[in-house]
Amino acid sequence: MTRLSDSLLDHLLLQDVPFGDLTTDSLGIGERPASITYSARNPMMLCGSEEAARMLEMKGALVEHLIPSGRLLAEGEPFLVATGNAEALHAVWKISQTLVEYLSGIATRTRRIVDAAHRIAPETVIACTRKNFPGTKEASTRAVRAGGGMMHRLGLSETILVFPEHRTFIAEPAALWIAALKARAPEKKIVVEVDKLADAEELMSCGIDVIQLEKFSPEDTARAVEIARRHSPMPAVAVAGGVTEDNVGAYVEAGCRLIVTSSPFFGKPCDVKVVLRPRRTEQAET
Amino acid sequence: MTRLSDSLLDHLLLQDVPFGDLTTDSLGIGERPASITYSARNPMMLCGSEEAARMLEMKGALVEHLIPSGRLLAEGEPFLVATGNAEALHAVWKISQTLVEYLSGIATRTRRIVDAAHRIAPETVIACTRKNFPGTKEASTRAVRAGGGMMHRLGLSETILVFPEHRTFIAEPAALWIAALKARAPEKKIVVEVDKLADAEELMSCGIDVIQLEKFSPEDTARAVEIARRHSPMPAVAVAGGVTEDNVGAYVEAGCRLIVTSSPFFGKPCDVKVVLRPRRTEQAET
Amino acid sequence: MTRLSDSLLDHLLLQDVPFGDLTTDSLGIGERPASITYSARNPMMLCGSEEAARMLEMKGALVEHLIPSGRLLAEGEPFLVATGNAEALHAVWKISQTLVEYLSGIATRTRRIVDAAHRIAPETVIACTRKNFPGTKEASTRAVRAGGGMMHRLGLSETILVFPEHRTFIAEPAALWIAALKARAPEKKIVVEVDKLADAEELMSCGIDVIQLEKFSPEDTARAVEIARRHSPMPAVAVAGGVTEDNVGAYVEAGCRLIVTSSPFFGKPCDVKVVLRPRRTEQAET
Amino acid sequence: MTRLSDSLLDHLLLQDVPFGDLTTDSLGIGERPASITYSARNPMMLCGSEEAARMLEMKGALVEHLIPSGRLLAEGEPFLVATGNAEALHAVWKISQTLVEYLSGIATRTRRIVDAAHRIAPETVIACTRKNFPGTKEASTRAVRAGGGMMHRLGLSETILVFPEHRTFIAEPAALWIAALKARAPEKKIVVEVDKLADAEELMSCGIDVIQLEKFSPEDTARAVEIARRHSPMPAVAVAGGVTEDNVGAYVEAGCRLIVTSSPFFGKPCDVKVVLRPRRTEQAET
Amino acid sequence: MTRLSDSLLDHLLLQDVPFGDLTTDSLGIGERPASITYSARNPMMLCGSEEAARMLEMKGALVEHLIPSGRLLAEGEPFLVATGNAEALHAVWKISQTLVEYLSGIATRTRRIVDAAHRIAPETVIACTRKNFPGTKEASTRAVRAGGGMMHRLGLSETILVFPEHRTFIAEPAALWIAALKARAPEKKIVVEVDKLADAEELMSCGIDVIQLEKFSPEDTARAVEIARRHSPMPAVAVAGGVTEDNVGAYVEAGCRLIVTSSPFFGKPCDVKVVLRPRRTEQAET
Amino acid sequence: MTRLSDSLLDHLLLQDVPFGDLTTDSLGIGERPASITYSARNPMMLCGSEEAARMLEMKGALVEHLIPSGRLLAEGEPFLVATGNAEALHAVWKISQTLVEYLSGIATRTRRIVDAAHRIAPETVIACTRKNFPGTKEASTRAVRAGGGMMHRLGLSETILVFPEHRTFIAEPAALWIAALKARAPEKKIVVEVDKLADAEELMSCGIDVIQLEKFSPEDTARAVEIARRHSPMPAVAVAGGVTEDNVGAYVEAGCRLIVTSSPFFGKPCDVKVVLRPRRTEQAET
Repeated sequence: MTRLSDSLLDHLLLQDVPFGDLTTDSLGIGERPASITYSARNPMMLCGSEEAARMLEMKGALVEHLIPSGRLLAEGEPFLVATGNAEALHAVWKISQTLVEYLSGIATRTRRIVDAAHRIAPETVIACTRKNFPGTKEASTRAVRAGGGMMHRLGLSETILVFPEHRTFIAEPAALWIAALKARAPEKKIVVEVDKLADAEELMSCGIDVIQLEKFSPEDTARAVEIARRHSPMPAVAVAGGVTEDNVGAYVEAGCRLIVTSSPFFGKPCDVKVVLRPRRTEQAET
Repeated sequence: MTRLSDSLLDHLLLQDVPFGDLTTDSLGIGERPASITYSARNPMMLCGSEEAARMLEMKGALVEHLIPSGRLLAEGEPFLVATGNAEALHAVWKISQTLVEYLSGIATRTRRIVDAAHRIAPETVIACTRKNFPGTKEASTRAVRAGGGMMHRLGLSETILVFPEHRTFIAEPAALWIAALKARAPEKKIVVEVDKLADAEELMSCGIDVIQLEKFSPEDTARAVEIARRHSPMPAVAVAGGVTEDNVGAYVEAGCRLIVTSSPFFGKPCDVKVVLRPRRTEQAET
Repeated sequence: MTRLSDSLLDHLLLQDVPFGDLTTDSLGIGERPASITYSARNPMMLCGSEEAARMLEMKGALVEHLIPSGRLLAEGEPFLVATGNAEALHAVWKISQTLVEYLSGIATRTRRIVDAAHRIAPETVIACTRKNFPGTKEASTRAVRAGGGMMHRLGLSETILVFPEHRTFIAEPAALWIAALKARAPEKKIVVEVDKLADAEELMSCGIDVIQLEKFSPEDTARAVEIARRHSPMPAVAVAGGVTEDNVGAYVEAGCRLIVTSSPFFGKPCDVKVVLRPRRTEQAET
Repeated sequence: MTRLSDSLLDHLLLQDVPFGDLTTDSLGIGERPASITYSARNPMMLCGSEEAARMLEMKGALVEHLIPSGRLLAEGEPFLVATGNAEALHAVWKISQTLVEYLSGIATRTRRIVDAAHRIAPETVIACTRKNFPGTKEASTRAVRAGGGMMHRLGLSETILVFPEHRTFIAEPAALWIAALKARAPEKKIVVEVDKLADAEELMSCGIDVIQLEKFSPEDTARAVEIARRHSPMPAVAVAGGVTEDNVGAYVEAGCRLIVTSSPFFGKPCDVKVVLRPRRTEQAET
Repeated sequence: MTRLSDSLLDHLLLQDVPFGDLTTDSLGIGERPASITYSARNPMMLCGSEEAARMLEMKGALVEHLIPSGRLLAEGEPFLVATGNAEALHAVWKISQTLVEYLSGIATRTRRIVDAAHRIAPETVIACTRKNFPGTKEASTRAVRAGGGMMHRLGLSETILVFPEHRTFIAEPAALWIAALKARAPEKKIVVEVDKLADAEELMSCGIDVIQLEKFSPEDTARAVEIARRHSPMPAVAVAGGVTEDNVGAYVEAGCRLIVTSSPFFGKPCDVKVVLRPRRTEQAET
Repeated sequence: MTRLSDSLLDHLLLQDVPFGDLTTDSLGIGERPASITYSARNPMMLCGSEEAARMLEMKGALVEHLIPSGRLLAEGEPFLVATGNAEALHAVWKISQTLVEYLSGIATRTRRIVDAAHRIAPETVIACTRKNFPGTKEASTRAVRAGGGMMHRLGLSETILVFPEHRTFIAEPAALWIAALKARAPEKKIVVEVDKLADAEELMSCGIDVIQLEKFSPEDTARAVEIARRHSPMPAVAVAGGVTEDNVGAYVEAGCRLIVTSSPFFGKPCDVKVVLRPRRTEQAET
């Protein structure tokens, strides 16, 4: 996936440094040649390095080393080195660092769930929900993908997901409305969320494509998978609600191959070390 | 503080439901009268309820009950009730719920640090950094304020904060550049970050306004406070880096009255329960 | 589906009348009370009336009569009446009229294809492509929906549609990559486009969900449907490329129940009559 | 005229491929070297090739061949060739193709009317109205100009065009308000639209600059031209409403040298063939 | 002319008070009922009062008195009164005051030139150039119109104005290129700027519509008017460059009836007095 | 400080030349090679040259000579030379010239006040208010900085400035609310504006950081400075309201070292001479 757009990066810079770094300016050090190096303080799945590099370029810096998003970094491994004047590097420093830290945090947590699931069944799909921090859909999606995850749905207008809250408005039997829905949206999978096993059983018998189990235990998940296997074609069984790196294995062992989770969005950003210092004159640009 | 702007809320809705909820549309239930109720699953510091209400209004719903941001909610307490047709309520449901959950998460964690500090010294100020998720400055700032915190700085262009990374470019003695800085920016406090006690001691003797201690232990913080007290006027002593709800008390007991922290930005959103269901006809609008 | 957003309508007004109607201003008639009536010159499927009404309100006019989008209008039937001063009505007149004309054109052509298909098989789905005029996705989608159509896909990031242009990059047998694709995207239907019957036959035997026939004759379509019926579950058969109101019947008679078409986007706008004239003083506002 | 702005092209890409081509990604073919070639399926007036090229560059592709907008293409003639990885080319393919098709459609139809008029009187001006699809003013204007047309007016704020709907608000004699209008707007031509020959005659006698005949027959147009010739300076005679490639000749033969038309905006896009395929390794970039 | 758009006003507020008035918040007075009154410190032509009122409403205040733009105010005359809480009124106060001051400054200076010209010849047109402060075209245009002026041209794309800088690229005789230009742009007046009387004489003999005299003395202007009068129809004679309230009379007396000027854009804003204070409880809202 | 963002420059170009220079196009001279040279008609402090250069580059021109912002130019000194085709240079000419003229006007006036103050006391700080023309904050801030000034405050959300209008809401003694304010905002200087000397005296005794004297005479300013000197630490004394290049010296002689002024925002733009002409063929690009 390509990096975040210039207009989004431009917005981030304008919001954080609308008129330059007042400290650098007031100290009168803006014109000094400088270098900046970003490295991982801990092992992490890198995401956002291209964006950090692009921000540096936007301010006139020169990128000399860049590791792309989607690569696992060892502790201490540098992933971005650039040179430029102190004004440019100080302006971009923190916002770029913060962006990489948040994106890599999501990517790393995504990757951990992916790994935990794949140790048991490598074909398991980790699909992240749209419950990212509102206003960060582009960034959060980018990080999920870099971490090896998929997006469950991008929004409400392009997928069919029938919640119990939809069904409270429907009086007719499930078989009828499901048939109608399949006819009306033949290019979409019919995904239905349930919070009770009995509902799962009834709905799978009506020919839905994906049954999404909301806050099921691994045991009930196993029962739902068993029921699903009796149908041909077998509906996909997804679990959603409360799945994390710690318990994902139990769900995969229960036979679930589609994990819907918001957990990579929560937690601490990764820790990126930045060294920003003067460049010696023998390194000065020609 | 006033709520997030219409243009930001409009953007969130357009991004999540650009063309309506396909599921509601395909089920043909969009015109049905409905009601929606948001409540707190756990005690929480509410933030974002006005925004959720505004999104509902933007889609034509009628808000019937609203508790404002900045109020502590008990478990199970409803804070927003609205009525409208099913199309409108389904379109706004998740994005508004998610917004309240993230904002209340930040507000609640801010409030917990504030409370932990205030139990020891009620005049302590909790100032959150600008290391919020890039792209959420308006929302994150709103939540910090609702939780009783301040913003450390809004960006680079309006405050003076001299990092060690700035000082690597300066050859002259601290007393000189600090005097120059004070002369050049007489309306700004001179804040200087240090990572060593010796540096703190030297810089405080040069007349700075705030010394920011980066990743100091409570013991070293106490030493720095002691040094600060010898100066008149006493510089403010801020600690930054790694302060959380758990250890903030130790820093306050060490005499620090200004806590700079990013920790409210990290962690899980609060849990909001939403009930969206048909409205009985005797409740129908006149 | 809800109407186009205020920000989009505001943009259209700003682009067309950034500083008011110079003619009205120069004639000095701007303050005169006036009324405006929009009606259909020919039978048409109405779309965009709420947007026209909203533009009028944005400029201070009062809407007195409004028929919603998605209604068939008879020749001469008025669908929007508003009053306001001449400045407001002249400013909104043409851009609102043009918007309704284009949207109703698309809605009407969509509806004609829907009707032609439904006369033979009422369960047939008409799905419009994303080949709308670039820059009009919101408006074009709104019109397709008002006319009874679906959107084939909203963009490239939320659906799987394997074109022959994708397959030129794949060396492995179809059964393999299709199985891999199904595993990787369990929540998406696997749609594959072919331009030869033999390809359709091979791909359907690999378990895809939808086979999209590019520029097939009705006869070849019938053959593909026959092949599809041999599979369980039967893949959906879509035709795409060159389907219009005139030939859609032949495809439906060939057994196709999913029509992918761009044709509603092309052709003339509907013809809307607008009467804008002074309001007599006994009608003047109180 | 210069091409459409980067911000507009960026918006089109973000709307169509916000997070990359899911199909390319899921197939795992994104990194493969590839080439893309655009050519005309039928003779056409090219417009939008620079924009397609720029979109490809924005995604990292390398443009190797480009014919500029405003050139007539023979059937089968390639106008744009680029190389890049499969991810970039698949992301840009359809939106760029669609843009060229719509723009070239408008440019080609504009050129046909221009040619039909110029065969009789080469000084005839074809001026397109502002009844383009709302939201496409930049693109539509660009295409009209590429096809050899002018824009009749860009909006309401920069030209004087008195419609009958304006005149219903004026009680005083035409001679009076026309004199006043000329005095108030000395840098603007006074254009007046009429739908009756008698009105044309009266208004031309009052010294207007352009008389715009709304839905006049060629015969009535000839009469209006004859009347116009009696005045010195002769007012320009424009026909508007229903002029197409087929009947424009009759109006030019009637002596009209200024044709106001919306017809180039309606009709099918041109047909552009795109070949997107792997690039052999011996062609690999150095 | 209608007021500036909500999106522009929203932008101004977001830029000036992105997160509320920190002073009001820190003082804890935000919830107090308050009133605000704007009045003219000196006689002035009012412009921007509707915008100030709208900003107040956007923040929840209630407008109780409003005089519209385009009215001459006496010294001390109040033009806007509103009530609301102190938070809202403090947030809007200065940005709304500043907007009215700048717009009224331009409107007042425009009006003064208009008055000075009209004392001699009431039909004289004052047309302001597009040399407003970049980024303020909407606001500046609004103010010029409120002051009784016209806009000379809104931009480069909608008018023909041939500068000497254009003519350095043309080798052919003026009569030829002017005839060609008139044929190509029959709906536009042909305006030509000259800086020498001899050029004015030559160009007027070629049938241009408007001769624009760049930095001519009143004496040379009188000579140009005399030459113009020999032609039929007489070209309009405009003076541009250095015309101000002080010397405009001399140009009008020289016979010039079209004044092109940038001078209203320069100079001090008007002085608006704002009283913001607590509202007594007996005035409190019900 | 870095230059204005591409998105802002793009907006200025789109607003002024949305569809190219109609005159250049209609004359058919757009493809001709050309050069453009900008120079100062009078001595001036240059600001905006990088922006002008960037606009030229955006349209495809080649910059050959550029003097950066913040340099004093002698009369007649060229600061920007570029080559390109006539279409590009004519499109950018006026908007870029106007931008440099306004920015340099503000920078030059700022510099004059700075110089006038520094002749007496070189450590005096000139801080410009936020009363710039609404919509020009980025540009105005850039110009103030280029001229050697500071920004007094960027907006309401990042500084504490207590106006008399805030104090009308406070009943408690100044010592109390000031102590509370200092505790609540330990990273901000407490700035208080007064319009009476007695108020200044009282408030300085309460420990504020900056006393801002609104419309004080130099004599009263001297008295306030004298009072301030009795306090330790001495509060900064700022004068605001009516300070200009002419009277700033008196305030500095009165002992004031912090001047708050809006006066650089008012007045005429600088005068920039632009020569735009054909480039001879021997200079043609290779």
